[in-house]
Amino acid sequence: MAAFDSWMIAPISSVISIALGLFLFQYITGKDSGTDRMKQIAGWIQEGSRSFLKTEYMYLGVFVAVMAIALSLFLSVKIGMTYIFGTIFSALAGVIGMEIAVRANVRTANAAKRGGLVEAFPIAFRGGAVMGLMVVGLDLFGISIIYWMTGDPEVILGMSIGASTLTLFMKAGGGIYTKTADISADLVGKVELSIPEDDPRNPAVIADNVGDNVGDCAGSGADLFDSYVAAIMAAMILGGSSQIGYLETIPLIFAGLGIISSIIGISMVRVGKGGDPGKALNLGTYATTFMFGLLTYIATWYFGYDIEIWYANIAGLLSGIVIGMTSDYYTSINRSPALKTAESSQTGAAVNILTGFSYGLISCFPALLGIGIGSAIAYTLYGVYGVGIAAVGMLAIAGTIIAGDAYGPIGDNAKGIAEMSELGEEVVDITDEIDAAGNTTKAITKGFAIGAAGLTALALLASYQEIVKNLTGQTISFNLMNPLVMLGVFIGMSIPVIFSAMTILGVSKNAHRMIEEIRRQFREIPGLMEGTGKPDYAACVNIATKGALRELLPLIIFTISTTLIVGFVAGIHALGGYLSGAIFSGFFLAILMANAGGLWDNAKKYVESGYFGGKGSDAHKAAVIGDTVGDPFKDTAGPSLNTLVTVISQIASLFAPLIIIIRARIGL
Amino acid sequence: MAAFDSWMIAPISSVISIALGLFLFQYITGKDSGTDRMKQIAGWIQEGSRSFLKTEYMYLGVFVAVMAIALSLFLSVKIGMTYIFGTIFSALAGVIGMEIAVRANVRTANAAKRGGLVEAFPIAFRGGAVMGLMVVGLDLFGISIIYWMTGDPEVILGMSIGASTLTLFMKAGGGIYTKTADISADLVGKVELSIPEDDPRNPAVIADNVGDNVGDCAGSGADLFDSYVAAIMAAMILGGSSQIGYLETIPLIFAGLGIISSIIGISMVRVGKGGDPGKALNLGTYATTFMFGLLTYIATWYFGYDIEIWYANIAGLLSGIVIGMTSDYYTSINRSPALKTAESSQTGAAVNILTGFSYGLISCFPALLGIGIGSAIAYTLYGVYGVGIAAVGMLAIAGTIIAGDAYGPIGDNAKGIAEMSELGEEVVDITDEIDAAGNTTKAITKGFAIGAAGLTALALLASYQEIVKNLTGQTISFNLMNPLVMLGVFIGMSIPVIFSAMTILGVSKNAHRMIEEIRRQFREIPGLMEGTGKPDYAACVNIATKGALRELLPLIIFTISTTLIVGFVAGIHALGGYLSGAIFSGFFLAILMANAGGLWDNAKKYVESGYFGGKGSDAHKAAVIGDTVGDPFKDTAGPSLNTLVTVISQIASLFAPLIIIIRARIGL
Repeated sequence: MAAFDSWMIAPISSVISIALGLFLFQYITGKDSGTDRMKQIAGWIQEGSRSFLKTEYMYLGVFVAVMAIALSLFLSVKIGMTYIFGTIFSALAGVIGMEIAVRANVRTANAAKRGGLVEAFPIAFRGGAVMGLMVVGLDLFGISIIYWMTGDPEVILGMSIGASTLTLFMKAGGGIYTKTADISADLVGKVELSIPEDDPRNPAVIADNVGDNVGDCAGSGADLFDSYVAAIMAAMILGGSSQIGYLETIPLIFAGLGIISSIIGISMVRVGKGGDPGKALNLGTYATTFMFGLLTYIATWYFGYDIEIWYANIAGLLSGIVIGMTSDYYTSINRSPALKTAESSQTGAAVNILTGFSYGLISCFPALLGIGIGSAIAYTLYGVYGVGIAAVGMLAIAGTIIAGDAYGPIGDNAKGIAEMSELGEEVVDITDEIDAAGNTTKAITKGFAIGAAGLTALALLASYQEIVKNLTGQTISFNLMNPLVMLGVFIGMSIPVIFSAMTILGVSKNAHRMIEEIRRQFREIPGLMEGTGKPDYAACVNIATKGALRELLPLIIFTISTTLIVGFVAGIHALGGYLSGAIFSGFFLAILMANAGGLWDNAKKYVESGYFGGKGSDAHKAAVIGDTVGDPFKDTAGPSLNTLVTVISQIASLFAPLIIIIRARIGL
Repeated sequence: MAAFDSWMIAPISSVISIALGLFLFQYITGKDSGTDRMKQIAGWIQEGSRSFLKTEYMYLGVFVAVMAIALSLFLSVKIGMTYIFGTIFSALAGVIGMEIAVRANVRTANAAKRGGLVEAFPIAFRGGAVMGLMVVGLDLFGISIIYWMTGDPEVILGMSIGASTLTLFMKAGGGIYTKTADISADLVGKVELSIPEDDPRNPAVIADNVGDNVGDCAGSGADLFDSYVAAIMAAMILGGSSQIGYLETIPLIFAGLGIISSIIGISMVRVGKGGDPGKALNLGTYATTFMFGLLTYIATWYFGYDIEIWYANIAGLLSGIVIGMTSDYYTSINRSPALKTAESSQTGAAVNILTGFSYGLISCFPALLGIGIGSAIAYTLYGVYGVGIAAVGMLAIAGTIIAGDAYGPIGDNAKGIAEMSELGEEVVDITDEIDAAGNTTKAITKGFAIGAAGLTALALLASYQEIVKNLTGQTISFNLMNPLVMLGVFIGMSIPVIFSAMTILGVSKNAHRMIEEIRRQFREIPGLMEGTGKPDYAACVNIATKGALRELLPLIIFTISTTLIVGFVAGIHALGGYLSGAIFSGFFLAILMANAGGLWDNAKKYVESGYFGGKGSDAHKAAVIGDTVGDPFKDTAGPSLNTLVTVISQIASLFAPLIIIIRARIGL
């Protein structure tokens, strides 16, 4: 009885989390949003962001409907329903992230004008906290409802895959969107017409600002949303098939305790007069980590769980932090990799790119080692369930992590608004300080998100094996000496590789369309160049949105169908190899692209701060080329890869029963 | 009795091959090498190349001695001896490749002057043929001797690993060398002092020309040399442990028939008046392939082998050709990927790099699929032995492949000599035609070499499993759900990744040293700039050579020791995962780097041929940056990776017994 009741920590803490999120939402909305000019600019960004989401969700509605019908027909109506449920929750997380970001940005700028850092920082951070609290709250609440209604963790798979497909659209679509707008605005504006960056005459300028919200805020929140569900679900499936009854609910309990830890951690993030935002953010992360370790230890002792489970949980938590820290090292502006890349810019763009790419490659080693050792320890402690719990442990502190991550673009946007509204240098400096602290947390979060997804993918692989075992009664071995497994690995490896390539190429195709539109507006709208005509911002937002979906849709259909084809044609072993292959190359490319991209960005910033000739020098030009190469690496292809791997893994688990039945029926 | 005698085809055909190689060597040396100026330039290149090899071999002598002693102490004196034997044969192949290249280049240029294409082509091609015939001849002769003396294919492992370590030094060392010289010569010469390319006043110019020989001729020959031994050995080990007696010698027989087919194919390569060198080269490849298929079929029928073995053999042959053909498609100057990359140069260097990189990524798909399907078919036909025979089938036509590959740099060098000796535009055009045909064969060969190494690595993985089985009596399973295997995969994946990064970074470090030396010479040698002082070419050659070894030695020691550490600490399963991981990332990166590099090169050439503004335009500058990024991709990091994987696989097989004994003794 005690074991049954205990998991109620999950829904209770998630409701608290949602309530607190809504409260902070109100708190921020209640703040003043400044001058008319500021309101106007913020209004454009808000309008553009909503228009993006509206268009995206309209298209996705059709996709989701088709998928839900297919799932209901081929699998079960229950799965179809939970699939829809998952997409709605994921979409909601996106909407909330967007809505709070477009409110908090202008209010942060205004607070910086009125009361300096001490007033501005809480608004930016609490804006991020809304996102963090809502994401984990909605997530765990949704899981709790489904589990309460069905008592079967495998049904959560429907919700999880719904969340993941939507996330994939938001991350990859948002990634194509943001870089399309960025490149087009720069090329026509800065290069062809020589008007400054962020100039309101440029029809693409709003799309560019919208892009920051779309890619960073909505995207990142959604990213951890989907790993979070997937990890909890995978661990529950692995626990459910064990003899020990309480294993199934531990993931829920630990996740609930993670939310409580996050709330405590978030509440400790404060900046006094002369305080350092970066340190305040770190304090929040450390406090959350410590609280989570403590609370789960108490729970383990109180409920009498095996202590090994707690150790596995901590192994996951620590390996997440290690991966985040190495990402930080390899991308920080004051560390050797970025400095050496900046220095190499003096020998030209090619050497800058080669140096940054090389350090990006090297940065994969600690991450691969971390995930390998973390999962090996967890497995040694408690078998595949240990790996699942490690992933849960890593993701349980997601509330705080997302808060710190969503804080970044709010600061970035506040800076843009301060500049465009001409609030003066002092205000821009304050927003700059907020922005800079965000850059570090962003690097750590990316590493963390990739690591979490890696561990989650391993847990999903294990749960795939478990599902097959439940069906056939046999533990399948993904033996690399089985040529079908090996073939699967090779094909699986290709998926993230092709996906990265196609999204990067998609950006340049889409940018071509948008460039035409910008040129058309300057040609046809009278007085646009002189500042008397009003540009059609919406047209650009529209092109970027639809173009992104146009590039993405075939790619996602390709991915899903390849997964199914491998499963149906080559069978259940090949599909296991395929999943492993996708994890291998996906994890590797995700880290490479995130770190190399961050590295080039900071190397450019270092040169811009006055070294090696500073702005306008040859070294700067070289560093800008490196940064531009890194942009779609870190903002388009890289961030989608972990979600892609999650989607593939879940599709495989979901269709495993059907694959087994159909192949058995035709005698394979 | 018949089965015993039949493998004598191997030593007999290898002796014929060596004899024919020596005969062609004499034939080329007997040709006139032109004017005094031509002889002088060729003499410098010859001197520089010899000096490189001499220094490299001196250093390697110490390394080989230490390794041989270690192998003798820890494993057996027999292995230590065959190790030395393997390094000597590999070194010999390098020397011969170098010696014929530095003779054939100037004689090709001279023949072009005297008799046009009809006279020049045979010299260039037969120069390549010397390399091809000598490599396969020496290889198979060496294997035959060891097998004849010991009757144990596992002893060949010593020779194979000797060949591989030396190859790794030659490929990676040569790769660092050639790009060091290239970058330094360009940066000081063209950029700082504005003297033309290939200007004899530049102290680095000879090192640059030497680099072409070092990287392309000696390197490529050695590359296939080591895969060739490894594939035959792996198949023999797999065959030897089978119940069917004749399986052990089939690899030798097929390799012998491959040599005969290569000799026939090579003899058919002719160009008449107005003929097309590209077509002639292709005819040679097709003829060899056809002959090999026919001869092995006859042998299969005559000796009464299972027909499935022949099919597996053909599966390997065909998948090699498919991989080569896709490499050709993705890098050819008149195909969509190169054209689109050239076109994208108009939007700047960053877009050119992103486009080329994306197509490079995409090009991995058919190759991964080809190797996956090829090995799966071979396995289905005849188990692991089928995979081994597929690798042998792929490599059996190496004689013709190497001939076509070594022909390329001879043509390239001939063109350089024709230009430097001012032989006139007509002669340069002829050498250009020879050079252009070489570029296509080079792309195909690279794909082929990578594919062959991939299949060989899979065969080595299987032979590793076999060796462990022979020792412990148990078939070990590399099950991905075993966390040690997974940990091994993650660490193994990192090795090629780090190796690529470090060799690329090594180039720029080494280039810095050489740039200092060039500047010093211009500062200190009186009259150098005016053309009255004589530059110290040898000093530059020396710096490039020693620097390359200095960057490489720690890297190779790191690789070997990581392999041993994984084996001893994490055990035999982890080591299997580790090998697999190295195959995964190594194969992927090798294809990516080779194809992206070739693509950027041809995109630049396309722009230079007058499109998008032609030479000197902004598009051209962008394309040059892409090409420079691609240079160390395709010439330094990429080509070493397959050898790296081979070395790792063999070290693992070689030390497996010791690992098992020691771990058993300490109770692991």
